Amino acid sequence: MPLTRTLLAAVLAASCAVADKTEAQTTPPQAAKNYTTPRQAELTQQFSNFLAIPNVAADPANLHKNAEFLVAQLQQHGAEAKLLTAPGLPAATPPVVWGEIKTPGAKRTIVFYAHYDGQPVTPSEWDTGQPFTPIIKQVDGEPRIYARGAGDDKAAIFAQLTALSALQDAHIPLQSNIRFIWEGEEEAGSAHLEQILMANRDLIHGDIWLVCDGPVDQTRRQNLIFGARGDAHLQITIYGPDHALHSGHYGNWAPNPAMMLAQLLAGMKDANGHVLIPHFYDGIVPLGPVEKKALAEAPVNDEMLRNEFVLGHTDGAGKHLLELLNEPSLNINGISSGQTGAHSTNSIPTTATANLDLRLVVGIDPKTQQQRVIDYIRSQGYFITEAPATREQRLAHPKVAYIQAEGGEPASRTPMDLPIAADVIHAIETARGKIILLPTFGGTVPLDAMERAAQTRTITVPIANHDDNQHAANENLRLQNLWDGTETMAALIAMP
Amino acid sequence: MPLTRTLLAAVLAASCAVADKTEAQTTPPQAAKNYTTPRQAELTQQFSNFLAIPNVAADPANLHKNAEFLVAQLQQHGAEAKLLTAPGLPAATPPVVWGEIKTPGAKRTIVFYAHYDGQPVTPSEWDTGQPFTPIIKQVDGEPRIYARGAGDDKAAIFAQLTALSALQDAHIPLQSNIRFIWEGEEEAGSAHLEQILMANRDLIHGDIWLVCDGPVDQTRRQNLIFGARGDAHLQITIYGPDHALHSGHYGNWAPNPAMMLAQLLAGMKDANGHVLIPHFYDGIVPLGPVEKKALAEAPVNDEMLRNEFVLGHTDGAGKHLLELLNEPSLNINGISSGQTGAHSTNSIPTTATANLDLRLVVGIDPKTQQQRVIDYIRSQGYFITEAPATREQRLAHPKVAYIQAEGGEPASRTPMDLPIAADVIHAIETARGKIILLPTFGGTVPLDAMERAAQTRTITVPIANHDDNQHAANENLRLQNLWDGTETMAALIAMP
Repeated sequence: MPLTRTLLAAVLAASCAVADKTEAQTTPPQAAKNYTTPRQAELTQQFSNFLAIPNVAADPANLHKNAEFLVAQLQQHGAEAKLLTAPGLPAATPPVVWGEIKTPGAKRTIVFYAHYDGQPVTPSEWDTGQPFTPIIKQVDGEPRIYARGAGDDKAAIFAQLTALSALQDAHIPLQSNIRFIWEGEEEAGSAHLEQILMANRDLIHGDIWLVCDGPVDQTRRQNLIFGARGDAHLQITIYGPDHALHSGHYGNWAPNPAMMLAQLLAGMKDANGHVLIPHFYDGIVPLGPVEKKALAEAPVNDEMLRNEFVLGHTDGAGKHLLELLNEPSLNINGISSGQTGAHSTNSIPTTATANLDLRLVVGIDPKTQQQRVIDYIRSQGYFITEAPATREQRLAHPKVAYIQAEGGEPASRTPMDLPIAADVIHAIETARGKIILLPTFGGTVPLDAMERAAQTRTITVPIANHDDNQHAANENLRLQNLWDGTETMAALIAMP
Repeated sequence: MPLTRTLLAAVLAASCAVADKTEAQTTPPQAAKNYTTPRQAELTQQFSNFLAIPNVAADPANLHKNAEFLVAQLQQHGAEAKLLTAPGLPAATPPVVWGEIKTPGAKRTIVFYAHYDGQPVTPSEWDTGQPFTPIIKQVDGEPRIYARGAGDDKAAIFAQLTALSALQDAHIPLQSNIRFIWEGEEEAGSAHLEQILMANRDLIHGDIWLVCDGPVDQTRRQNLIFGARGDAHLQITIYGPDHALHSGHYGNWAPNPAMMLAQLLAGMKDANGHVLIPHFYDGIVPLGPVEKKALAEAPVNDEMLRNEFVLGHTDGAGKHLLELLNEPSLNINGISSGQTGAHSTNSIPTTATANLDLRLVVGIDPKTQQQRVIDYIRSQGYFITEAPATREQRLAHPKVAYIQAEGGEPASRTPMDLPIAADVIHAIETARGKIILLPTFGGTVPLDAMERAAQTRTITVPIANHDDNQHAANENLRLQNLWDGTETMAALIAMP
């Protein structure tokens, strides 16, 4: 039978009295460990049931099912809970799951953000062929659970729910108001998150938003990240002949769009991966002394990762990965022109396309960075069009590029020396020992939108293993990360 | 009822006597025109029936059906005919169709080469969805027939058969022995042609091989080509991380194979398409004065083609297309890495692949040219492997390229001033007026293999329209090219 919010308050008040006498030694992380250790099989099964509800953007009905499941879970864990949406959104828009536990005389309000949706799946690429039939496999002698969303990001949600159970079980009282904001569109670019948040501003504010997403350090040590790179995209299409030409009859006369694209892209970076596009690094807001110190103290895992990813070299002219994540980047997500391999034909392709991913840091906004790349392409002699090029445009200009610039997400960075940051660091260190502090996450989370809407700052608290194949086939969670993560969440929920 | 070879000889002898008295004015091309003009509908239907027999490498049963159909056709046209093969070939190997008409007191033997197989098809790319259900469409007020093989190369075969009918109908005697060699593996690289020819050497020799393939000039004037570029291929695979990485978490640290490939390819050519690979142009056997004169007299269609193909510029630093076809070329047939367009994801791809097409001229053999490109890749810091790279190789070398070098076809060029060349030119000019003489075809035909096996030289006699979409969807033949081609074939078969 689900606890009501009122009943929970009563239980917590009672437990508070008991705890003072008999359980004064039990810290929130210990309570989490005491709760999960004897129940790992049962909890793993419950997590598996959650993972079995498909959570991809192409399947909005099941996304809704996830959301309704989570509302029920929150209510069963003693929270007030409901679905948030905004006026005028498409009917299929996955709602935000909202939950709240009010604490009488609370010192603060902490908001826990996570997302219940996952990246798209291509079942044939999965070992099992079934991304939503979770299975357990041993990797390096440790159990992992395989399913879409296992690491990114249902683990965080399940750890928060389990932490609530553990705290209740150990009768540990809370000192903060707790809010949960669980999004359903993160992997689809959080297209409506800000709109939904703005429509529910009185429900979402907190002294801090804890963004529970992403992986812990590659050494498996807990990290805490104070910002995220932003992101912007460009799709570039270069034109060759208007139909594929025989590469014997017309080769070395008809321009080859694949070669034109190669030459255009090649000029964007030097041999060390440094971007050569003018002004690309202009405007970066430098790290402060606290952030620089934290970065200097963070472990350097480059050699371990180089071996794990089978890389013969790395970009960055000797800079470490963690340093490089504080710089903007330019990455080719894909290139295509004509056919390769067995399907290759002796022809000159009609077009060549590249998709570029531009990661941003504080001080460089999406449109500015996109424009710098567009200006560079123009400086290479290209006529730029924002719609597919017409015959007239193609005939009139030696080189034509059709560029689609998608709206991006700005970077965000919370100062490490805020008082609330000290509370968060202290709480987590009671659970996980000395933690790693990083100024910037390499990936992108819509922190900026959250901060604008909730009028607060964000700190990212990851719990997944770094080798969880997020955004790929065979996504998984190392179960130890779930138990560790539950301790971390318990420490934060019951922060003194 | 089919004519037997003996009967044909009798008919030809009789017609010879008649012709001397009553049809002395009828030239072979006139005879062809007189024959086809009143029968265009009927002949088009017959050609359509031929095109309806699928002729792709993936369907050997139907290739055999084509071959058997052609043997029957040759026999019906009074020729001796059979299928040629060689010991030890795979059972599914498409045979060579061989035919012969012996002429008592023949001045020479002329061999007509063509091929009955076509390029692979992707039905969904065709307007009709059915590459082997021929249809007639009007283009610029003229009828064309659409089907795989229409232009490349069943048109030549059908024109030869129709020319035989026309000559018989007009009782025009032959002065040469005529042989037909119709291949079934040209579009699959003529893998067994030389072997089959060598196994049947007594059946294939001639004073000249007329290779009836390819398109006439873009002005629709008849051309005659004295050689063909050779061809060699390279497939290059560059390695990134061993599984796709999140481009936010690892972008600008993990090397991107698409960027590495772009930089490698970009260095192979300058902005005018001139190849920068060392020694790429070394060893070219220059054109002689007759060939240079012919080239200077050939029409320059560049501006027309530039407009037709919708090209804003052309490579070659101002050289004309026909000049450039006498140089070796490097063309990218395709590049691929990661995904583009709607399927693009924020990841660093694991590999990047390019397929290169190297066209060759006399003096540069396939292996030499492949090696020059491989040497260049090595000079750019790449470790080269001829098998998929191992984990150890990828870790040990900053840059690794897996290169597959497929066996190629050398270039070939027949001197324009051979006596037999003069006879061929004269015969065709009785049909088509002043013709265009070109030293080299841009595309590749296995001329070198034919010349080695048959101990002869080759001259290429195209009849198809240049805009026939050969090697692509919606392949077609402008029917006027079929009627003109029949005149050309009649002139050659009945060469005085």
